[in-house]
Amino acid sequence: MHQNSNDAAFRIETDSMGEVKVPADRLWGAQTQRSCVNFPIGVERFRFGRPVIRALGILKKAAAKANAELGQIPQDKARLIVRAADEVIEGHWDGEFPLVVFQTGSGTQTNMNANEVIANRAIQMAGGQAGSKKPVHPNDDVNHSQSSNDTFPTAMHIAAVEVLTGTTIPAVQQLRNTLDAKAQAYGEIVMVGRTHLQDATPVTLGQVIGGWVAQLDDAIATLAHALKGLYRLAIGGTAVGTGLNAHPLFGESAARFIADETGHPFISAPNKFVALSAHDDLVNTSAALRTLAGAMMKIANDVRWYACGPRAGFAELRIPENEPGSSIMPGKVNPTQSEAMTMVAVQVYGNDAAVAFAGSQGNFQLNVYKPVMVHNVLESAELIADACRAFDEHCAQGIEPNEDRIREHLNSSLMLVTALNPHIGYEKSAKIAMTAYREKTTLREAAVKLGHVTGEQFDQWVRAEEMTGPKP
Amino acid sequence: MHQNSNDAAFRIETDSMGEVKVPADRLWGAQTQRSCVNFPIGVERFRFGRPVIRALGILKKAAAKANAELGQIPQDKARLIVRAADEVIEGHWDGEFPLVVFQTGSGTQTNMNANEVIANRAIQMAGGQAGSKKPVHPNDDVNHSQSSNDTFPTAMHIAAVEVLTGTTIPAVQQLRNTLDAKAQAYGEIVMVGRTHLQDATPVTLGQVIGGWVAQLDDAIATLAHALKGLYRLAIGGTAVGTGLNAHPLFGESAARFIADETGHPFISAPNKFVALSAHDDLVNTSAALRTLAGAMMKIANDVRWYACGPRAGFAELRIPENEPGSSIMPGKVNPTQSEAMTMVAVQVYGNDAAVAFAGSQGNFQLNVYKPVMVHNVLESAELIADACRAFDEHCAQGIEPNEDRIREHLNSSLMLVTALNPHIGYEKSAKIAMTAYREKTTLREAAVKLGHVTGEQFDQWVRAEEMTGPKP
Amino acid sequence: MHQNSNDAAFRIETDSMGEVKVPADRLWGAQTQRSCVNFPIGVERFRFGRPVIRALGILKKAAAKANAELGQIPQDKARLIVRAADEVIEGHWDGEFPLVVFQTGSGTQTNMNANEVIANRAIQMAGGQAGSKKPVHPNDDVNHSQSSNDTFPTAMHIAAVEVLTGTTIPAVQQLRNTLDAKAQAYGEIVMVGRTHLQDATPVTLGQVIGGWVAQLDDAIATLAHALKGLYRLAIGGTAVGTGLNAHPLFGESAARFIADETGHPFISAPNKFVALSAHDDLVNTSAALRTLAGAMMKIANDVRWYACGPRAGFAELRIPENEPGSSIMPGKVNPTQSEAMTMVAVQVYGNDAAVAFAGSQGNFQLNVYKPVMVHNVLESAELIADACRAFDEHCAQGIEPNEDRIREHLNSSLMLVTALNPHIGYEKSAKIAMTAYREKTTLREAAVKLGHVTGEQFDQWVRAEEMTGPKP
Amino acid sequence: MHQNSNDAAFRIETDSMGEVKVPADRLWGAQTQRSCVNFPIGVERFRFGRPVIRALGILKKAAAKANAELGQIPQDKARLIVRAADEVIEGHWDGEFPLVVFQTGSGTQTNMNANEVIANRAIQMAGGQAGSKKPVHPNDDVNHSQSSNDTFPTAMHIAAVEVLTGTTIPAVQQLRNTLDAKAQAYGEIVMVGRTHLQDATPVTLGQVIGGWVAQLDDAIATLAHALKGLYRLAIGGTAVGTGLNAHPLFGESAARFIADETGHPFISAPNKFVALSAHDDLVNTSAALRTLAGAMMKIANDVRWYACGPRAGFAELRIPENEPGSSIMPGKVNPTQSEAMTMVAVQVYGNDAAVAFAGSQGNFQLNVYKPVMVHNVLESAELIADACRAFDEHCAQGIEPNEDRIREHLNSSLMLVTALNPHIGYEKSAKIAMTAYREKTTLREAAVKLGHVTGEQFDQWVRAEEMTGPKP
Repeated sequence: MHQNSNDAAFRIETDSMGEVKVPADRLWGAQTQRSCVNFPIGVERFRFGRPVIRALGILKKAAAKANAELGQIPQDKARLIVRAADEVIEGHWDGEFPLVVFQTGSGTQTNMNANEVIANRAIQMAGGQAGSKKPVHPNDDVNHSQSSNDTFPTAMHIAAVEVLTGTTIPAVQQLRNTLDAKAQAYGEIVMVGRTHLQDATPVTLGQVIGGWVAQLDDAIATLAHALKGLYRLAIGGTAVGTGLNAHPLFGESAARFIADETGHPFISAPNKFVALSAHDDLVNTSAALRTLAGAMMKIANDVRWYACGPRAGFAELRIPENEPGSSIMPGKVNPTQSEAMTMVAVQVYGNDAAVAFAGSQGNFQLNVYKPVMVHNVLESAELIADACRAFDEHCAQGIEPNEDRIREHLNSSLMLVTALNPHIGYEKSAKIAMTAYREKTTLREAAVKLGHVTGEQFDQWVRAEEMTGPKP
Repeated sequence: MHQNSNDAAFRIETDSMGEVKVPADRLWGAQTQRSCVNFPIGVERFRFGRPVIRALGILKKAAAKANAELGQIPQDKARLIVRAADEVIEGHWDGEFPLVVFQTGSGTQTNMNANEVIANRAIQMAGGQAGSKKPVHPNDDVNHSQSSNDTFPTAMHIAAVEVLTGTTIPAVQQLRNTLDAKAQAYGEIVMVGRTHLQDATPVTLGQVIGGWVAQLDDAIATLAHALKGLYRLAIGGTAVGTGLNAHPLFGESAARFIADETGHPFISAPNKFVALSAHDDLVNTSAALRTLAGAMMKIANDVRWYACGPRAGFAELRIPENEPGSSIMPGKVNPTQSEAMTMVAVQVYGNDAAVAFAGSQGNFQLNVYKPVMVHNVLESAELIADACRAFDEHCAQGIEPNEDRIREHLNSSLMLVTALNPHIGYEKSAKIAMTAYREKTTLREAAVKLGHVTGEQFDQWVRAEEMTGPKP
Repeated sequence: MHQNSNDAAFRIETDSMGEVKVPADRLWGAQTQRSCVNFPIGVERFRFGRPVIRALGILKKAAAKANAELGQIPQDKARLIVRAADEVIEGHWDGEFPLVVFQTGSGTQTNMNANEVIANRAIQMAGGQAGSKKPVHPNDDVNHSQSSNDTFPTAMHIAAVEVLTGTTIPAVQQLRNTLDAKAQAYGEIVMVGRTHLQDATPVTLGQVIGGWVAQLDDAIATLAHALKGLYRLAIGGTAVGTGLNAHPLFGESAARFIADETGHPFISAPNKFVALSAHDDLVNTSAALRTLAGAMMKIANDVRWYACGPRAGFAELRIPENEPGSSIMPGKVNPTQSEAMTMVAVQVYGNDAAVAFAGSQGNFQLNVYKPVMVHNVLESAELIADACRAFDEHCAQGIEPNEDRIREHLNSSLMLVTALNPHIGYEKSAKIAMTAYREKTTLREAAVKLGHVTGEQFDQWVRAEEMTGPKP
Repeated sequence: MHQNSNDAAFRIETDSMGEVKVPADRLWGAQTQRSCVNFPIGVERFRFGRPVIRALGILKKAAAKANAELGQIPQDKARLIVRAADEVIEGHWDGEFPLVVFQTGSGTQTNMNANEVIANRAIQMAGGQAGSKKPVHPNDDVNHSQSSNDTFPTAMHIAAVEVLTGTTIPAVQQLRNTLDAKAQAYGEIVMVGRTHLQDATPVTLGQVIGGWVAQLDDAIATLAHALKGLYRLAIGGTAVGTGLNAHPLFGESAARFIADETGHPFISAPNKFVALSAHDDLVNTSAALRTLAGAMMKIANDVRWYACGPRAGFAELRIPENEPGSSIMPGKVNPTQSEAMTMVAVQVYGNDAAVAFAGSQGNFQLNVYKPVMVHNVLESAELIADACRAFDEHCAQGIEPNEDRIREHLNSSLMLVTALNPHIGYEKSAKIAMTAYREKTTLREAAVKLGHVTGEQFDQWVRAEEMTGPKP
């Protein structure tokens, strides 16, 4: 894909290892090209996407500003870099980022990809020739005061924060709000509670759905806490954490510009050694996404079990029919959104296992599993968002109680007998329940038949809605 | 536990690092004692148990025989070691093995524990004084031709094979046989099939349970294949795999004696370097146990969902009531055996994650996660066995169809309409189904009402049992 | 174990399912006994231990006080329960808790175990007869206003908080403090930094160890945040979350008494439905323990790699020799504490996988994986504590730099050449490095040989300690 | 992407739920279109690729042949389907398969996608109009005798077998062969063995690399065994496993045609109920890939540790330099291929966790995690292949011993002293080793200095190569 057959279509670039043929129309350079050749691993699926490219643009822009502020590079050079980086931020050059996750474990080649693209674009803007390294050099200028070892983890955090706050959390909240409205709407619908999958004392549908909402709220709060760790940026640590070759204030300055650019409270990480050699903030973020996925699994499972039927299952909820179930079997509504969501949940669990494994494997001054860690965190964050939006739009918004069925189940429940205790005592109540169970009748029928209560008394005393707790 | 306050209760042992106080009445020696002091980690829960102790006894017995056969140690000394090892094999000295999993990653200290106990017991048998190392030396004699690095993985394999074949597989087969008898017994009971949790075309209860049986059979076959890897023993590799200090035929001789002792076809591993530095045979075994656990989860879940009720759920199966559910709510039978079994399943999944992680972490000539690997494999193997036996005895044997409910569900099912197609055509059939669905009647009622068939025709044509496939 | 052959040694207890023979000298009753019989799964290893028993005692004590405060049970009965519960809290009756993890998934039987033991002990205190249920009834009195479904998760949280704050965090902090002192002590020792496992620019040993300290500090902070979720208690929700059969203020009152008893800021969970049907607070806690385990793995790995040798490895750190390595090979100090710690780390990863899986499997109003979840969280918390203490005492405190080796490596490093750039320019510096690499000499030798600098200049300009960042 | 703004660019298709606008130039139909709209989840990354599309083509071709053979559809219609399916098999229509993993958990929509594309292409071939369903109907003809519930798992197995045998195993074998040649080539190079990361008795480089080869051979054998499970196809089970609506011989006939088409010994699964409701064959395959990934991690780690340096590490192996390490630091060769491979390994571990989780979640007659299971298995299989090829070409083929360093380490090793035992006895040997360790000299120097041996004797007796085992 990245190579043409015609030699005229290439330019020759040189790096410390010698010459490399780069497609003439590309902004990337020698090091990106070498990586394309050396790492044909998972090429289509594992290419870095928008969030990481954008984060690199933000980082390089901020670095240029910080370098200018601290007198490390001239103002006009910095302005060129900023302009080029702005285009990267806005997504004009995503096609110039061909590299994949499975490369150098420090993300060096993707950092170099950003340096090369921004340098060459800046050179174009200045009227120069791509690949000439003049007037903007990818290493000496765009990467000034930086090392892959601090830039890539910085980009990881920026990308994760932006996806989580801009995509994941809003999508979860959208679903949560839909469910919350349902919980309010169905606060009066009393249904059989179930523990151990067995009939139990009643609850309202509002309480059931309210439980889902509370679980999502908790999961969002956990994610929000994980963000705090992500706000700490490695930038300023350079190659091993000591900040060698960077101005002592560079990390703080760059972090401040990143905060300005993104609107998030990024700071320079207090300990740069741990910021390079461990990525526990990403591990924690992945864990928070896993908790969220677990909540989604509980909710999506509840939905499909409540909706199972139409005849021989619970069938207490109706869900939208989005696709033909069976042409001859009306009412067979497969809970496909629940299926998609629970599949996303297991994928997130798997991704998290990869992240946590990778997070434990740092050695000395560097963890070299950076790309695979950020990839999985971002993928989980985006999958959850996609699944929440689809589930919200194509399922949650259309959830409705099947009131006949709910009432039928509730009325047939033997558990309501507990409401008779205060009136006729425990023993007679138990006898009524046992009779109903053995004779396969309702409690009411058994109670009247045994003569312990009249029908009117039963209706007056056995009120499931009063068993669902104090009104809020 | 291992230390008394009275100094008279100790003997002084000496090893290369100096003197150690060992409880006078203990058969273990200096190195075991040091490990007790240095590794107070998970002391009660993670002590090595019967299978590993027995395996060490078998190994040391076989090693003594091999050494004698090859002229490495005198026959009489070998006989003493064999006698002492026999007592270890039979379980007389389990209390002399105090060490835990979290120790040296090669299991060195547990190997030394075996050497010390067997040497001291052999010394006792010879009328000598424990700790004197005469006439049997723990290193020079009991450990002759061996290193921890080859003995401990050998014991791992022996223990795993014995537990899997002697405990796990029989327990699974016991459950499988119970289920198989149920599948035969209930081959004529036709019930609603369910896909996507939704009503679908009918199946027999025999087919349902037969599916569980087939899944268990497959899982047993997978376990049986994993055994083949376990038959390959590291013994003969000594410290780094080269067999230094061992007779070239020692590994084969010892493996032959181990095979004789156990009745399993153990062999000397063809490549000793991989036998010390990787334990993929254990990883594969753990994976096979995980697959089995996944099958158990499917089956236990099916059981509890089919049994959910008594009124407002499927309630198509009845399961034994082993504990009081609710004193006032007859019929509330909590599926506690399913709950125990699914909890075992998730534990096995967790254990497997630990094993696989550990298996990837070898370096150079040794993987130093041996104890934690064998611990988790054995624990999973034993938990599955326990859970299968309990589930079999307290649940599976008592599973019964709730035939009324099964028939009620089947009769109410709209899916049976497909049987009318050949007689009245697709369109009329669909109309019947739609009418039944909308008007909440049975198919039969709708069909007769619409005038497309008579009641007799319906009964003659709509036979669910003929929709469950050819008779076997 | 729990049954004697002599019938005289039993008393007959009755529950709703009939008679049960209970060992006469036991405080437990019918339901505990049934569980012993029905769940012989992992009996020794998976018995609930001190933290859960203590937590149940605390809970039952607080419940009795809350019931008394709210007029639900008489004061004198409450006092009896409190006295009996105090003995359970203090550990006098641990032997009366024989049940294991793999039982009912709500922990019902362990809740009943506590009810039975406390009731019978209270009866004894009142001069009554164990098993008589007079004057204290296990259900009606000890379990008053409660259900297993809210008590067990409450005990889970209490146990987890107590172990984490009382055991885990102090142990980690002890190790952290040892390392912090080392970081201070060795702040001046300059050594080769390593990225991608390759020689890189220098760092100080203080910076290296300081990175470990910072990683542990972060992990402790993550754990501390997880505690906040654990402070929320399910108590008051009773069977399905509605609080049926409990006084509306019972949950808050009980939580307040639990807070008083423990000194931790426990509160009544704001949403009881989620408190019964999901245990994301435990999943988050498990994840925090996993992050901590990952940090431990990084640190323990660094320690053993830095210590590898004595001749043919890095050998830059010396660690204590706790056991004989090789009798003939002085200096072979196996990093056994690192091995134990990394094995604990993989176990914690495995336990966490089980917890997270279990956490996703709730249905409707209950998650029935409670026992296996709390078991794994507590086991991880205790293993980490044990491993940190052992590692601290037997390894970390004795870590010392091998200064000769560190200096030798540093002096041989080619990376220091970057310090010459400002003085002789990039090209000459590169030439010096290349010459040293090809001719296998030191930089200094190459520099002097090439004539670019004098020996004095080299020593003056190439100062590794100035490459490790600004002095703090 | 799939929608144009111009209404003229659409055709109207109708299914049982009503009308759908489908892009006029597309071969897919209504159901595919609905899925595009309903499941915008992970759209770019999670689209089904070549192996699944090809497998569906193979399946539909074989089904048409089986239907014709059994007289279920006319020969000419079957021939049309076969021709259209052939084009799908060959990859002409991959762009017509827009659907993603996260859809219906049975893969129904992807099955319908295949039905629609093949039907419309067959219609085109017959001169008809796409969307007309004449003369070839997607359901009645292409899907004849089939259900998504048996076709999709059949396609899963076909795809997995083809990728494993055609891509994964050959790539692993290519690497294995390279390593095997290295093992042969370096069989005489004696180096320090290392256990617990500490210097140990010597091994040859051939033995080291031979251990890697043996581990890969074992992993390939494990994969090969997993294939046996995959050869069993669900086809013939239709919707619930009973084979309703399919000819009793259809499954066997179709499996035979699939075997013919692929050259693999596919058969009709002996139990169709388990073939639909569980996918343990895929779980086992995933586990085999995980074991392989674990082996890759061990090998890639060994390579990078042996290569670490150039000065301050082991530096016993040289690996190819594929990218610029440091412009000023010659010899800094980052082990980037090891990094990519170990990242692939952790990804495979994560994918496997997802597969195993999903595999446990079947209910009743269907497991609805099919798409996510096959996706992860195929991704792991392809990533491993890519990584092995890249590692082979860019690293393994260029691995060379750094013989100076190897010899230097070996000569400095204290472990060789054991070779003196037979000549001068254990005590003098130990004294030599201790002297060398304390005085930081070589063994030879210490031995000569102490006067226990002459230099000539030392050289004659201490021959590391004789400590590496019998010559093969």
